[in-house]
Amino acid sequence: GFYKAFEALSLQRMAEVWSETLPISCVHPGWALVAGRSSVLASWAGIFRGTERIRFELREPQAFVAGDTAWVGLVEAIEAQPSGGLVRALAHTTNVFVLEVGVWRLVHHHAAPTADAPRPPEEPERVLH
Amino acid sequence: GFYKAFEALSLQRMAEVWSETLPISCVHPGWALVAGRSSVLASWAGIFRGTERIRFELREPQAFVAGDTAWVGLVEAIEAQPSGGLVRALAHTTNVFVLEVGVWRLVHHHAAPTADAPRPPEEPERVLH
Repeated sequence: GFYKAFEALSLQRMAEVWSETLPISCVHPGWALVAGRSSVLASWAGIFRGTERIRFELREPQAFVAGDTAWVGLVEAIEAQPSGGLVRALAHTTNVFVLEVGVWRLVHHHAAPTADAPRPPEEPERVLH
Repeated sequence: GFYKAFEALSLQRMAEVWSETLPISCVHPGWALVAGRSSVLASWAGIFRGTERIRFELREPQAFVAGDTAWVGLVEAIEAQPSGGLVRALAHTTNVFVLEVGVWRLVHHHAAPTADAPRPPEEPERVLH
């Protein structure tokens, strides 16, 4: 699925998760919405290039099915290694799927940073201004 | 629609926006996911009770339709008056709809506070600890 492809940093596997025929869109944490298959896959390629390693712990997943539409709400506890360093973060995420010829394909991913994101332990707290 | 019902602080109109027969869920800014019609409507009742006035400016709305599934990604520029005071905020929002007997009904709303939310002008900046 989506998180296995993400952890594998595999663009090919990520491409298979998303619908190939329907419109798709994606909101990465702190980004504007990205629309269309080529732009969405390009956004993943960029994220994968900038990431050495990423692991997810999926908290409180809740799935909903309504005919050919399904969505999952969950909290992603993320531990990521960009170029050096270590980042821990929480994201409130919605993943929307559509049933296509018997297969659930991702059509929309919205990952939102939460206000209560744990800060990286090595980073001192900073004054806001 | 959804934002007219929200601005009107009308629970009756909000109830009509959401599907009555399908599973529904809702993530308010900073909240955990709320699932099920009675819990979702109770969450709106609570928000409406605590709000004197709220206005939305909808920025960069992008709509996607895939068969009986549709979703809209947008940025909500919010100006709200809770008990006294004035709050300005931005939220990155996903609204998911399902076509039911010819009518698009809301099944999932995920409003996420953005990191670049403007702070209320009357509130001084605070040190984080």
